[in-house]
Amino acid sequence: MIKNLERIKDNSLHSLVVGANEAASWIQDGMTLGLSGFTRAGDAKAVPFALVERAKKEDFKVNIFTGASLGSDIDKLLSEAGIINKRLPFQADATMRKNINAGKHLFVDQHLSHTAEMIRSGALPEIDFAIVEAISITSDGMIIPTTSVGNSLTFVSQAKNIIVEINLGHSELLEGLHDLYEPADQGEREPIPVTKVDDRIGTMGIPFDSAKIRGIVFTEHIDSPSTIVSPDFETEEIAQHLITFLREEVKAGRFTNKLAPIQSGIGSVANAVLHGMIDSEFEDLQVYSEVLQDSVFDLIDAGKVNFASACSITLSGKKMEQVYGNFEKYRDQLILRPQEITNHPEIIRRLGLIAINTALEFDIYGNVNSTHVSGTKMMNGIGGSGDFARNSRVAIFVTKSIAKGGNISSIVPFVAHVDHTEHDVDVVVTEQGYVDLRGLAPRERAELIIENCAHPHYKEQLSHYYEEALTRGGQTPHVLEKAFSFHTNLAEHGTMLEKLV
Amino acid sequence: MIKNLERIKDNSLHSLVVGANEAASWIQDGMTLGLSGFTRAGDAKAVPFALVERAKKEDFKVNIFTGASLGSDIDKLLSEAGIINKRLPFQADATMRKNINAGKHLFVDQHLSHTAEMIRSGALPEIDFAIVEAISITSDGMIIPTTSVGNSLTFVSQAKNIIVEINLGHSELLEGLHDLYEPADQGEREPIPVTKVDDRIGTMGIPFDSAKIRGIVFTEHIDSPSTIVSPDFETEEIAQHLITFLREEVKAGRFTNKLAPIQSGIGSVANAVLHGMIDSEFEDLQVYSEVLQDSVFDLIDAGKVNFASACSITLSGKKMEQVYGNFEKYRDQLILRPQEITNHPEIIRRLGLIAINTALEFDIYGNVNSTHVSGTKMMNGIGGSGDFARNSRVAIFVTKSIAKGGNISSIVPFVAHVDHTEHDVDVVVTEQGYVDLRGLAPRERAELIIENCAHPHYKEQLSHYYEEALTRGGQTPHVLEKAFSFHTNLAEHGTMLEKLV
Repeated sequence: MIKNLERIKDNSLHSLVVGANEAASWIQDGMTLGLSGFTRAGDAKAVPFALVERAKKEDFKVNIFTGASLGSDIDKLLSEAGIINKRLPFQADATMRKNINAGKHLFVDQHLSHTAEMIRSGALPEIDFAIVEAISITSDGMIIPTTSVGNSLTFVSQAKNIIVEINLGHSELLEGLHDLYEPADQGEREPIPVTKVDDRIGTMGIPFDSAKIRGIVFTEHIDSPSTIVSPDFETEEIAQHLITFLREEVKAGRFTNKLAPIQSGIGSVANAVLHGMIDSEFEDLQVYSEVLQDSVFDLIDAGKVNFASACSITLSGKKMEQVYGNFEKYRDQLILRPQEITNHPEIIRRLGLIAINTALEFDIYGNVNSTHVSGTKMMNGIGGSGDFARNSRVAIFVTKSIAKGGNISSIVPFVAHVDHTEHDVDVVVTEQGYVDLRGLAPRERAELIIENCAHPHYKEQLSHYYEEALTRGGQTPHVLEKAFSFHTNLAEHGTMLEKLV
Repeated sequence: MIKNLERIKDNSLHSLVVGANEAASWIQDGMTLGLSGFTRAGDAKAVPFALVERAKKEDFKVNIFTGASLGSDIDKLLSEAGIINKRLPFQADATMRKNINAGKHLFVDQHLSHTAEMIRSGALPEIDFAIVEAISITSDGMIIPTTSVGNSLTFVSQAKNIIVEINLGHSELLEGLHDLYEPADQGEREPIPVTKVDDRIGTMGIPFDSAKIRGIVFTEHIDSPSTIVSPDFETEEIAQHLITFLREEVKAGRFTNKLAPIQSGIGSVANAVLHGMIDSEFEDLQVYSEVLQDSVFDLIDAGKVNFASACSITLSGKKMEQVYGNFEKYRDQLILRPQEITNHPEIIRRLGLIAINTALEFDIYGNVNSTHVSGTKMMNGIGGSGDFARNSRVAIFVTKSIAKGGNISSIVPFVAHVDHTEHDVDVVVTEQGYVDLRGLAPRERAELIIENCAHPHYKEQLSHYYEEALTRGGQTPHVLEKAFSFHTNLAEHGTMLEKLV
């Protein structure tokens, strides 16, 4: 491992440089670790790898708290190694998912703006070790994060011990990108002073107590690229319906062509939807989101987006080369903040965001399931979708109307898990069309959702359900014994489609 | 009707005084009315009564938007008269409830902090007439509200026409009680500058454009008293468990005996719970809530609460006499604000409230149903419980573990309607006990909820469900085809209790 001590600008810390195996050896059974990392970006890598190695010879378990999902198969390796007791607040790894659903370790699915608050207030276990990736350590006592900020600020401020992973694979050009601000305790804090997307309110790095730095590790392991797939016919249709909705908003005088700051969830559908705005009439756009995916940089390149704020940058391999190879071009248009600030209800409501997130399924009344396949099996987690949907100006949920070759309808009578209630869902969009649910009573919602959003193969079946429900009456008519019939059909027959005998 | 023109301190408005029937005659079929009124307090009365009279001779329908529920049987009378097209954002009347559930008119169940924002942004129909109750009109162009503020500020600022009902039944001593602040449009607003419960940030009345005042009506009709029932054995037990939880929080160093500002939902259970704090060691308490019920004044009298902020005061007949008969004693310890401010996520999160709300039922994973009996029939509405639960420091839900003489278990495998997801529910309390859900994974939650909160008659049945669910696996194990079995049992057999054959 090449070590570049120039990245540690406070010389008094040079003596703390150690190997990853040594750092990993300090971690004890039962401890809680706060790891940097958000959607595969800026994750601590060297110490987690060493920890997995150590687990081959030793039994121990730890709690793993992060910003969000980790890259470099770290979640997979940690989960396979059997050393996780509890993981929070988000993950997106196939192996970890399998182990969570098998009950092999615990997972707490949290709103991403809540974790830092809960750690500070003592509602979660104390962090024994913060392990955070950095570009450098400044001479005046700050850790400069890399491609994500996540919960690192709070992990460092609250942890008993800190391990810094200086990653030489990240360019020092990233310095100046970050804006670190931590609210005071609840009841003693001032308003968070962000009133514009590009407001800088904090420091350029994470302040730390040098007495808590246990070790500094060097690594060169770069971030995992994202696995975004290109837009397809359905996601392009979704994008067009969304643009139609926004165009109607402009026509009604509720927005100008500059719209409002946009938040867009992670994943291929959200990426495609944002990508669809390149050829629209909307302009001078701003992004206030969690994650900047490829599409945001495409929009910047196209001159459509003039500023983007988030807590991580997660790109495909190709886009990484382009963006980090020309970083001077982008850096004045970007800020990375803690996830507590990117996802803070105060700022989301103040700025009046347009929030676009992906649903696994939604029901005829507009309740959304973002997390649980068939109501029981965790996919990834709610992430920031609740932070944004609950507090944004317009909360939009997008999904393809069917999945698994038509055997699954994404529109169901009753979602088998509720992450976002009908109160928090303003617009639903599929490739079939959209419904603006604002101000609509449940019975108005049901008719429009079935008509505009459901796939033609499922419309009749949904209408049958709704008509039977109407005979039972109520504000939100249901036939409770059949409410999950789509899901139980799927479990029994491999398809939600009823055999119409 | 006695008229007291001295209550209209701007003489140029005296010529606008009319009878209620004349004012009601201006309202046209298809219009949208914004009425003052929040939980039976400060509701416009004379014009709604006149409108109901007019409906005996004429067919028309209007949308009725309010702060929350109305008193004086106005919701009942409007609903019976058949003149409602759509009602929002909350109601609590038995007749209206019946008509909503029969599909006779539409009801939109909204978070109470959202309505004003949606009216300003144009996402709801324009308000044709704001009809607001007042103590007086000042010489400098302000309407002084009475016992609630609700959405009146926004109704007045956004309506095409304004009718003021000056209610001589309210004392002018209420002047100075109110603090009116309306945020600028989203994207253009500054932080809302409330950082302490007792901060005054606005004007003492509602500013208005005098060209929009169509008429001023006099009335003497006083507010309806609340129908709070006294604490009983179960609600006292709930209060004691809640106090135990708070005591543990103090012991863990997360709070002092001053706790944090308290929000408490409306109703007998919430009132009883708050009442239970009179004999506790907690002191110097502050209240930042929607509604001040009897118990808050009991706590003020006991020297336990030193300041209370809300958007309405709703009291029993006896308490009304005591409070309004000695108002000088209380006025320096009270502020009434718009519901947009009392329920604003920005302030709720900043102050770090302890939010106590009532559940109809909750499930073994901590999801809460606040609104829909058996998942379909509207009770009252979500009210502010979502605003508070989602953004508070500790979101507590309370309910008795059984209802209807034991035929209903308030703890079920899967709530038949979700208003608050497991992500937003921190503590659940019944007379059996409580569970602190923070940081717990679903499987940890289920065991504790069944053990600590369920009624002994239902524990075995809930455990059976959970054990079968575990055989299916998943992050949140369920047996979907039996998830609503408690509810379908109730519908079929009149009890959720399974006949153990």
